[in-house]
Amino acid sequence: MKPNKNYSSLKESYLFSEIAHRVADFSKANPDAEIIKMGIGDVTRPLCEAVVDAMKKSSEDMGQAAAFHGYGPEQGYDFLREKIQSYYKSFDVTLDLGEIFISDGAKSDLGNILDLFDKDNTVLIPDPVYPVYVDTNLMDGRKIVFADANEENGFLPMPQDDVAADIIYLCSPNNPTGAAYNKDQLKVWVDYALKNKAVILFDAAYESFIIDPSLPRSIFAIDGADKCAIEFCSLSKTAGFTGTRCGYTIVPKNLMAEDMSLNKMWLRRQTTKFNGVSYVVQRGAEAVFTESGLKQTRENIAYYRENANIITKALDELGWYYTGGKNSPYIWLRCPDGMDSWAFFDKLLTEIGVVGTPGAGFGKNGQNFFRLTAFSTHENTEKAMAKLKKLFS
Amino acid sequence: MKPNKNYSSLKESYLFSEIAHRVADFSKANPDAEIIKMGIGDVTRPLCEAVVDAMKKSSEDMGQAAAFHGYGPEQGYDFLREKIQSYYKSFDVTLDLGEIFISDGAKSDLGNILDLFDKDNTVLIPDPVYPVYVDTNLMDGRKIVFADANEENGFLPMPQDDVAADIIYLCSPNNPTGAAYNKDQLKVWVDYALKNKAVILFDAAYESFIIDPSLPRSIFAIDGADKCAIEFCSLSKTAGFTGTRCGYTIVPKNLMAEDMSLNKMWLRRQTTKFNGVSYVVQRGAEAVFTESGLKQTRENIAYYRENANIITKALDELGWYYTGGKNSPYIWLRCPDGMDSWAFFDKLLTEIGVVGTPGAGFGKNGQNFFRLTAFSTHENTEKAMAKLKKLFS
Repeated sequence: MKPNKNYSSLKESYLFSEIAHRVADFSKANPDAEIIKMGIGDVTRPLCEAVVDAMKKSSEDMGQAAAFHGYGPEQGYDFLREKIQSYYKSFDVTLDLGEIFISDGAKSDLGNILDLFDKDNTVLIPDPVYPVYVDTNLMDGRKIVFADANEENGFLPMPQDDVAADIIYLCSPNNPTGAAYNKDQLKVWVDYALKNKAVILFDAAYESFIIDPSLPRSIFAIDGADKCAIEFCSLSKTAGFTGTRCGYTIVPKNLMAEDMSLNKMWLRRQTTKFNGVSYVVQRGAEAVFTESGLKQTRENIAYYRENANIITKALDELGWYYTGGKNSPYIWLRCPDGMDSWAFFDKLLTEIGVVGTPGAGFGKNGQNFFRLTAFSTHENTEKAMAKLKKLFS
Repeated sequence: MKPNKNYSSLKESYLFSEIAHRVADFSKANPDAEIIKMGIGDVTRPLCEAVVDAMKKSSEDMGQAAAFHGYGPEQGYDFLREKIQSYYKSFDVTLDLGEIFISDGAKSDLGNILDLFDKDNTVLIPDPVYPVYVDTNLMDGRKIVFADANEENGFLPMPQDDVAADIIYLCSPNNPTGAAYNKDQLKVWVDYALKNKAVILFDAAYESFIIDPSLPRSIFAIDGADKCAIEFCSLSKTAGFTGTRCGYTIVPKNLMAEDMSLNKMWLRRQTTKFNGVSYVVQRGAEAVFTESGLKQTRENIAYYRENANIITKALDELGWYYTGGKNSPYIWLRCPDGMDSWAFFDKLLTEIGVVGTPGAGFGKNGQNFFRLTAFSTHENTEKAMAKLKKLFS
């Protein structure tokens, strides 16, 4: 048997293990030092009451013969798909129920969607970037070209007419930079994709952090996107589902690749290689979109947003360049004095006990940048920013 | 963008929709006729109390800041992996914790595992067969050869020295035939795989139905299997998890493909394209392997097994050839009088209102065979068999 040799071209990602290693070394040498973690990309607030109640109730149902649920539809229960349909409607995007596929999270579907594409396609990926876009394509041996995201373009690269691409990744609001495209910018991408017969894989995992009404929450708010885009979203950040696992993927019925319907292909892929998300989890996800669920999850997002405000206020006072924080839980800052991101990491760790994520871990354009996240507590975020300001002023 | 054209070589599977269609037509024409469903491959009994309690408790935990769980390990929590390690130990199979990967079900991992293999491999699949083995390989464009399972070999085909294969599918106890390999037979397969440097993909989804102690519950009960096999199992049939979604995949650390470790490749695949199974579901799965969980799930299996006994007793009285039913919830019978499986289906439906699954739906060797399942109630199974005996005696 011949293995898939493309796996040998994958580099090990040492980013988070290297961070953990340096933090452990520092803690060992300084057992009394307080460490404030501002690098984590995971939520910290518990599931809201509406979700917990729905999961308890449905767990109980599963123990009763009359209410038990066996195999469900691979593409998800209509009770949840209808809620997502209404959610999109709330920001003026109309979806057919058959375009909504329930997933166990955006990461799974972002990887699995590549089953639908030939290996012989050129992939365009912004740099810096969420590393799985690159790794999943390396696993298939596809050619990758990068779009530079940098201070010049506000970390929002636009298409270049001299670059040919077949598969385009966009993440907005972005991980790791927090930068978000407006409608005009996304329209340029959609037009470029239509012209080049390319498909846009749009990662909307952070859409729930958008407050600026001029920013689209979905690529399908853009005319023509239903003919060139697939959207991935998740309840991980929307409702704290990082450990509960539920998301959704939108594959428009108008989306064709040559003479093949990507919607039909994805349905076939999912019915063949997936058995749907747990009934109990889908009932929990349904509760997110009820009146009480929306209210409760938005309170959690408001809590994180307040942390982002604390961070951006401190950076404004320091006069540092950054993106994100307004419509995103991530703040991407330029390290002061032209510092390298790992040197800045070490300085924050050893001098004020604050842990962030070096931008170099997200690509070459992250070399002098640093990511802070809004997922800590108010108290710790305040404390960390006070220390940061003291250190640099 | 070029689509994966292999998808156009997939045939639509009309088996279950055709069955539903014929049943609906009959019911419409005969509104008072009682229909007994004996074709369904899904469990019908609810989750046991131990599982329900664990899922309720962990749902509640997820609503408390101190007990909340965000992202978990992609390969599953150790609390569950340790339980599975002990479960294997109970039938004398020793596994390293790092060889156990928690999945959302056997179907997902049986499809996704193919990421690890080059397209240029020949795949050996028994016929009749669970259709996803064929479809997942057609999606990748691999060459498929079939091993005939028939009355002559008791629906347990053995390797042929003149057939070269790189990837071999074995399912034991089998879906759809219920036939199960003994240790000597599996040893022949393992030796063949080792000699041919092939990998065996062993589907053990029905292992919990084995009562004959001479039949292995795992391919890893066979010497040498740790160098040539991957095993897929599920709690779907073990504990009624078809709608709850949890399984596990065993990838031995000794399993190499050329110079690449399949265990490391699978870990890399899962950390890149998967985010683990829901915490609440993993807590439910953990409860399956507690003393009370094992007792309660075994009561459910005993219930289904009694249905299988009712069916095989009737077939014995009729003097019909069949496989399965002893160590499996499936009974695979030869249609009487050389009948075609769809003709037999129509006869049972229209004359006694019993619905089974025509063997033709599982491959060419199923043309004159028929699958009955043990997932109905005692009452309905008794009633269906009484009608069957009356019809044919």
